[in-house]
Amino acid sequence: MILIDIINILRESKKVYIMPHVSVDGDGLGSSIALGLALEKIGTSVEVWLEEDVPSVYSFLPGSKLIRVYNGEVDLPREDIGTVVALDAGDLARLGKRVEIFNNAEITINIDHHNTNDEFAQYNYVNVTSSSVGEILYQLIKMMGIEFDRDIATCLYVAISTDTGGFRYSNTTSVTHQIAGDLLNSGVNVADVSQKVFDTVSYEKVMLMGAAINSLELFENGKIAFITISDDVMMSTGAKEEDCDGIVNIGRNIRGVEVAVMMRSRSDGELKVNLRSNSYVNVSEIAKLYSGGGHKRAAGCTVKGNIEDIKSKLLDDIRKVL
Amino acid sequence: MILIDIINILRESKKVYIMPHVSVDGDGLGSSIALGLALEKIGTSVEVWLEEDVPSVYSFLPGSKLIRVYNGEVDLPREDIGTVVALDAGDLARLGKRVEIFNNAEITINIDHHNTNDEFAQYNYVNVTSSSVGEILYQLIKMMGIEFDRDIATCLYVAISTDTGGFRYSNTTSVTHQIAGDLLNSGVNVADVSQKVFDTVSYEKVMLMGAAINSLELFENGKIAFITISDDVMMSTGAKEEDCDGIVNIGRNIRGVEVAVMMRSRSDGELKVNLRSNSYVNVSEIAKLYSGGGHKRAAGCTVKGNIEDIKSKLLDDIRKVL
Repeated sequence: MILIDIINILRESKKVYIMPHVSVDGDGLGSSIALGLALEKIGTSVEVWLEEDVPSVYSFLPGSKLIRVYNGEVDLPREDIGTVVALDAGDLARLGKRVEIFNNAEITINIDHHNTNDEFAQYNYVNVTSSSVGEILYQLIKMMGIEFDRDIATCLYVAISTDTGGFRYSNTTSVTHQIAGDLLNSGVNVADVSQKVFDTVSYEKVMLMGAAINSLELFENGKIAFITISDDVMMSTGAKEEDCDGIVNIGRNIRGVEVAVMMRSRSDGELKVNLRSNSYVNVSEIAKLYSGGGHKRAAGCTVKGNIEDIKSKLLDDIRKVL
Repeated sequence: MILIDIINILRESKKVYIMPHVSVDGDGLGSSIALGLALEKIGTSVEVWLEEDVPSVYSFLPGSKLIRVYNGEVDLPREDIGTVVALDAGDLARLGKRVEIFNNAEITINIDHHNTNDEFAQYNYVNVTSSSVGEILYQLIKMMGIEFDRDIATCLYVAISTDTGGFRYSNTTSVTHQIAGDLLNSGVNVADVSQKVFDTVSYEKVMLMGAAINSLELFENGKIAFITISDDVMMSTGAKEEDCDGIVNIGRNIRGVEVAVMMRSRSDGELKVNLRSNSYVNVSEIAKLYSGGGHKRAAGCTVKGNIEDIKSKLLDDIRKVL
């Protein structure tokens, strides 16, 4: 499938439903709103359907009038559904309950950049060399001849910058920067957007970071960093479970550390273990020993048992491959 | 002064001394090494003179064979000094003791992007619309027809990305991104460089961050964040004075905070105060009340007195403008 075929379908569609994946991130949300705003400019009726509320970090994004949230209180559209566009979703399961909209549509389109995409729609455009769906939509909107305004540019900038970790991950290419440069010309307020997207954190998350640092232990001359977070810590900091995301990087980022572990111990005896490495240790091999999995540099597992026993066993397993 | 005149002088120079400002940062160091490596490619003899050792965060940069450090143990070159290029330095004082090299040179060049630059050299190129000196040197090296290799590109990428806070500050322009994109084509390992430059921190700094979070207090319904760091904390964490840089942002980045204060209290009674604001408070006005200064969103002052008295006076002053 080439992009021009999808463009022709979108041009002919009077009503378009846009759906990013569940637990929407910056790329899914930014891309969805950007496409919605662009299609509105050529007179298309647009609705962006989300599975959950807009994450508070992205509440500053424009286009809120396009957004509908399937939260059990509203009815999903089931009739006269023209064209549905799924964005940043590798398979149908990623559409959650909104798959009903998708299944009742006349025309279905799937635009994505994941190499695991199973081409679930009638029309599929999957470009795995794109850092983000935002990068693909930049090209699509350009090809449609729709002019970028500050709102569209801001949404695409958020999509691209979040999926590349602020132009820091290995998926960042020369094209990524060229597109970002062009978006800046359309009036993106870089400092303001970056502050909101990358720097703003909740008080509870900061407290959790403090508790995580308080619990931090180094082993093997500083090559292993170990962070433990208990239910008590979660209670006293008021942090949400999702605030634990990224806490393992506090250990990983310490100079000299090769393997970082974050152990989230629940009072019911379940332990969630996050593993990260910097250069050479394949942490997915360690996770596999505990029926977990992941990648070389980022893996995880869930274990039941005594926290001290598991900690000491984990440390032994890591020492063997250090 | 236009860049082509400086290029002609550099082409004719057999020996070039390059000097960034004292307390060198990523832009000063990356630009210096990039220019040195580029000039070596056309047969020029090059020395990069620093006032202090290469900061450990930048120890991975190439070109270490070019670097000489004036640390009191080596003699400064004083004779037969051909061409000296000062980089990223607003005035002569920014060259520290190395000003002797500058003063004994036949030809002096000053390339900078600070609007305070006083054009102290014979040949001055000051471009205040450039995010960084790295951006200027990208153009200079291009205009000289010298091919970029991975080493030169990596140095310029570090220069540009550090001075723009990873493409997040308001000095980031469309041109900045276009240049970054071109540098990636020359083989910069984005993920590796970004991890080293932006994510790696010392254990002591992490401990200091933990102590800062432990001391964090919110006032006025979370609009003021207050962090205190005492000599005891510095001792127990093993942190260096420079590790206090940026600690105030822990408070500033909390959702809902308008003014963040970091008070570094010394046992000799001196208090160093850092002030940051997010949207509307002009913190330089507050700093002025204590004979300090700065910008609207970032200011500071040094005060002597009882810590609790000054803290409560500061809070009163902030409350008045909240």
